[in-house]
Amino acid sequence: MNEEIPLETEDLPPGAVEKVAIQRVTAFEKEEAEDIIVREFPLTIIFNGQELVTLLCSPADLKYLAIGFLFSEGLLKNKDDIKQIIVDEGKGVVRVETPDIENTDNDTIFKRIITPGCGRGASFYSVADLGLESVKSNLSIKAAEVFQLMKVFQHRSLIFRTTGGVHSAALCNNREIMLFSEDIGRHNAIDKIFGQCLDKGINVNDHIVLTSGRVSSEIIIKITRRKVPILISKSAPTSSGVKLADELGITLVGFVRGSRMNVYTHNWRITT
Amino acid sequence: MNEEIPLETEDLPPGAVEKVAIQRVTAFEKEEAEDIIVREFPLTIIFNGQELVTLLCSPADLKYLAIGFLFSEGLLKNKDDIKQIIVDEGKGVVRVETPDIENTDNDTIFKRIITPGCGRGASFYSVADLGLESVKSNLSIKAAEVFQLMKVFQHRSLIFRTTGGVHSAALCNNREIMLFSEDIGRHNAIDKIFGQCLDKGINVNDHIVLTSGRVSSEIIIKITRRKVPILISKSAPTSSGVKLADELGITLVGFVRGSRMNVYTHNWRITT
Repeated sequence: MNEEIPLETEDLPPGAVEKVAIQRVTAFEKEEAEDIIVREFPLTIIFNGQELVTLLCSPADLKYLAIGFLFSEGLLKNKDDIKQIIVDEGKGVVRVETPDIENTDNDTIFKRIITPGCGRGASFYSVADLGLESVKSNLSIKAAEVFQLMKVFQHRSLIFRTTGGVHSAALCNNREIMLFSEDIGRHNAIDKIFGQCLDKGINVNDHIVLTSGRVSSEIIIKITRRKVPILISKSAPTSSGVKLADELGITLVGFVRGSRMNVYTHNWRITT
Repeated sequence: MNEEIPLETEDLPPGAVEKVAIQRVTAFEKEEAEDIIVREFPLTIIFNGQELVTLLCSPADLKYLAIGFLFSEGLLKNKDDIKQIIVDEGKGVVRVETPDIENTDNDTIFKRIITPGCGRGASFYSVADLGLESVKSNLSIKAAEVFQLMKVFQHRSLIFRTTGGVHSAALCNNREIMLFSEDIGRHNAIDKIFGQCLDKGINVNDHIVLTSGRVSSEIIIKITRRKVPILISKSAPTSSGVKLADELGITLVGFVRGSRMNVYTHNWRITT
């Protein structure tokens, strides 16, 4: 990223970054140097024998990413829907099979999975169309706890501090971060958290999700599917993100910076 | 975004932002306030009568976005490929028809357009598979000119400074910004620039593209299709972004901050 950051990569997940030769340039001089950049890895998900999607991601927690993605897209409902999952990291492939493979309508799936992502969004349905229910949790958190969690969250992002090229996400309770992930995609980082929860049977209701990324409608839909009542972001929300969070009972916090934050919806869950 | 920024929206494109009631919260107090957030707009592209994709975008330059997206995805080769384009902003629909509608294989198109975006990437093909040729331009730019362009570029981003929720992109020559766009998606912002160039017959060879966003393989592929020799980003590149830029003859500059930058590939085009 820049010369103030020591080029130490031992603490990072294996394969997360690469060193490259660059020139550092000012208006007056060029200097040969070394930079650490984040690795981009193509992961293809093969769902019941058919190629579903190729995600560009950071090469860690590939199994969790595949599970989380399939749940976020509504293709899996619970862990019993996974008959078999095989990760071939060398080939960049995850094969997922469901028990009812004969009944899967792959054409419908293909039409549905078009372009989630960063401003390349899944089709925008109404809340009713999506079959989403409001999140009812009575969970609340003190503002001071939010600031403390975000401070720990930002310090924990080793790959970001080394490369500046990733997003991070975390699952936490009021006091501490329980799961943490980093990925070149803000969607992937959250899917890795949820995938791990589903795989390990960790209940996410009455927990909090932290994200470094902007909060669009797609992120709120993802959060609502897992019934997480509080979403806290370092960044900005979009208009549809705020509208959906309001309708779906989610407390949406944005722009947490130091000891200030903006609470966009259902502010009763944030106490002082 | 925050209270230091005056809530003046007259200078922004119509419909680009919305005002919402929020609470600003510190550890000790809550205050009712107003915030300006960026609008998220779903735009469906109907290609030769068939629904192709719904992009979540900022509601400006929808025609340019549609054209730029279709070119970036390789579905249009030049302006003659557009027989008719109708934008229905009220319905959030752009209809594009090509002259050879009978010969279009929509099933193939559907399979190809899966998930470009932010870490939700288009399938990763080899350079040869993509049918891309190296960019050969002899264009060069002085480092001091890069710093000046990026300074103007960052000051120009009104929506970002108001909401913190968008990416920006620009087309420029060595001295000045010629086209500028902002969008909630970093891909969309670049597609809007290229769409406008294609629509107006502006030649982009021997020009420079500026972006606020991270540079992944997909961004390099987009730039190479338009034969732009120099890409300058405020942010980080990924490993595949650097590798492709190297192979495809693109000068990739990242982390332009004040009067310093990292030149990742083909550094002979940046002079001091």
